[in-house]
Amino acid sequence: MRMMVRSVNRKMAIGWAKESKGCLSSTMTRASNTWKDNQSSQILLSPPLVTLDLPDIWAAKSTHYDPLSGQKISNVQIATVINGKLIAEEIRSRVASEVKRMKECIGKVPGLAVILVGERRDSQTYVRNKIKACEEAGIKSVMAELPNYCAEDDVMTAVLKFNEDPSVHGILVQLPLPEHLDEEKILNVLSLEKDVDGFHPINMGNLAMRGREPLFIPCTPKGCLELLIRSGVEIAGKKAVVIGRSNIVGLPISLLLQRHHATVSIVHACTKNPEQITREADLVVSAAGVPSLIRSSWLKQGSVVIDVGTCPIEDPSSGVWIPSCRDVCYEEALRLLLQLLPPYLEALDP
Amino acid sequence: MRMMVRSVNRKMAIGWAKESKGCLSSTMTRASNTWKDNQSSQILLSPPLVTLDLPDIWAAKSTHYDPLSGQKISNVQIATVINGKLIAEEIRSRVASEVKRMKECIGKVPGLAVILVGERRDSQTYVRNKIKACEEAGIKSVMAELPNYCAEDDVMTAVLKFNEDPSVHGILVQLPLPEHLDEEKILNVLSLEKDVDGFHPINMGNLAMRGREPLFIPCTPKGCLELLIRSGVEIAGKKAVVIGRSNIVGLPISLLLQRHHATVSIVHACTKNPEQITREADLVVSAAGVPSLIRSSWLKQGSVVIDVGTCPIEDPSSGVWIPSCRDVCYEEALRLLLQLLPPYLEALDP
Repeated sequence: MRMMVRSVNRKMAIGWAKESKGCLSSTMTRASNTWKDNQSSQILLSPPLVTLDLPDIWAAKSTHYDPLSGQKISNVQIATVINGKLIAEEIRSRVASEVKRMKECIGKVPGLAVILVGERRDSQTYVRNKIKACEEAGIKSVMAELPNYCAEDDVMTAVLKFNEDPSVHGILVQLPLPEHLDEEKILNVLSLEKDVDGFHPINMGNLAMRGREPLFIPCTPKGCLELLIRSGVEIAGKKAVVIGRSNIVGLPISLLLQRHHATVSIVHACTKNPEQITREADLVVSAAGVPSLIRSSWLKQGSVVIDVGTCPIEDPSSGVWIPSCRDVCYEEALRLLLQLLPPYLEALDP
Repeated sequence: MRMMVRSVNRKMAIGWAKESKGCLSSTMTRASNTWKDNQSSQILLSPPLVTLDLPDIWAAKSTHYDPLSGQKISNVQIATVINGKLIAEEIRSRVASEVKRMKECIGKVPGLAVILVGERRDSQTYVRNKIKACEEAGIKSVMAELPNYCAEDDVMTAVLKFNEDPSVHGILVQLPLPEHLDEEKILNVLSLEKDVDGFHPINMGNLAMRGREPLFIPCTPKGCLELLIRSGVEIAGKKAVVIGRSNIVGLPISLLLQRHHATVSIVHACTKNPEQITREADLVVSAAGVPSLIRSSWLKQGSVVIDVGTCPIEDPSSGVWIPSCRDVCYEEALRLLLQLLPPYLEALDP
């Protein structure tokens, strides 16, 4: 099964798709009935990301306990390119149709509130994109814009107002906040049921703990899992390296990969020999935010690489801040691709 | 500096102490003033376990960013044995003197409430040991014993009663609970300020997240860190493998080691080649609960090994349940010790 080999450009991911029907379906069959019932749907549903808990049964004599036993997966692999934008379009289209159906059935649509403090150009761009995505999907969005030097109480009041508003179902506080504001204090008053960013420690704790379920999962890590699962990349039992340990990406992606039974190593700035450790990984998610940190010498043939590290820069022509300066040295990874067997390489944005 | 080479028996740890004064002091100097001010104390204070956050500054060209730069640590190592029981005695003695001082100053002592449901012999033994430790330290303890088939509401009522009791400062719900009881629901009503086990997801989330501080840290992982830090084992930058991913030990120890800037890999039942991954570690904490899982072939010379895995068995002579059947094959590890350069091996109990 050759997967998603579409236009090849900087916005794409390069990699391996298993020559097998087993990978994606193995995930699908482990999921809830709703998921199974909707397999026939033309648009792919999001697979359940955090319900794959397996009992920790250790096999005798160090042999591997295969959680997917019975699934025959061929070793034949074909170099392929994953189009992240296309997957995003599929998901957005699915969300739009769900919202439309919701409106028809109960006369309501989901509501998202965004709180933006200050005039950071990159934050303004991110917020604008979120509002635009809401519009396209039919989701109602409201925004509270506060000046850079507003009081902490003003932000708290905005959060509390949205907490109480029954037409608002999710609240995003755009981070980072100006330095004089206590991020922890502000996020702590955000209603758990509306913490769509999943940054509340109780959500993170529930993501970390076995047998628990968070109400929300941070969006970037969830997006990475979507890319992997929808591309038929096997996660269980794989050696995964997460580069970076931020609360927003590194930490939750490592917890998510572990929930999917990868063997996860977290590489960070204090790691000795990060290159060597990363080169051993079957699956690399880089979220360091350090331009060109990951050279081809950090990657092994056949590995899967997701690059979510960005250093936002301002486009001088438009004045718009765009995520750029990726963690992975794209050209080197491309050369590795051309040599023989490429790693997946996902540059989420150009 | 040869460290803690005292009586050698099954209750001990074997390993390396750095031939340097740098290791322990390097941790100490990074800590709070209170810690530094108390260095002269005859009894060692607990080092701060979760306040060592460093900025993630990545060095150019893959070189290691040394968080302890300026500290010269000699490479000369001496095989040594850590006496876990002695360290425990030091800590208990310190706690007792603190409690005594508290009583003299404010006329109050800390209070611990333990809730025991059912007649599991191992749980009864653990609870008895906790109550005894409280008595020895001058801590007031109260216990609520409930029958195996009690209603969920009865356990909740006991928790709520202790939540309200101002003389109770910590509450332990002895786990596992009988199967008909909803552990999550019961632990969720436990007052966060009294969750001395640190099992509430908000405590776990705060342990996981950078820049956050949990109110409490689960005791076994905290004990492992105490052993390492008090023995002068360097953690920052080391390759650590945690075997097992339970909410009680594996998860929090991996989060704690990461807070101390180790490069942590979590090995579990789905891991392929766990032996190979573990053999690469400088520091191994095993909490799988699988007897003799870790053979000498899993360990490398010079590594530090902490074994907290237990399978409790009943002593037929006394009827008392004792933790036994360790994860690490002790005899093989001893032979490794006798060969040339031993790993630390910590068997917390005989």
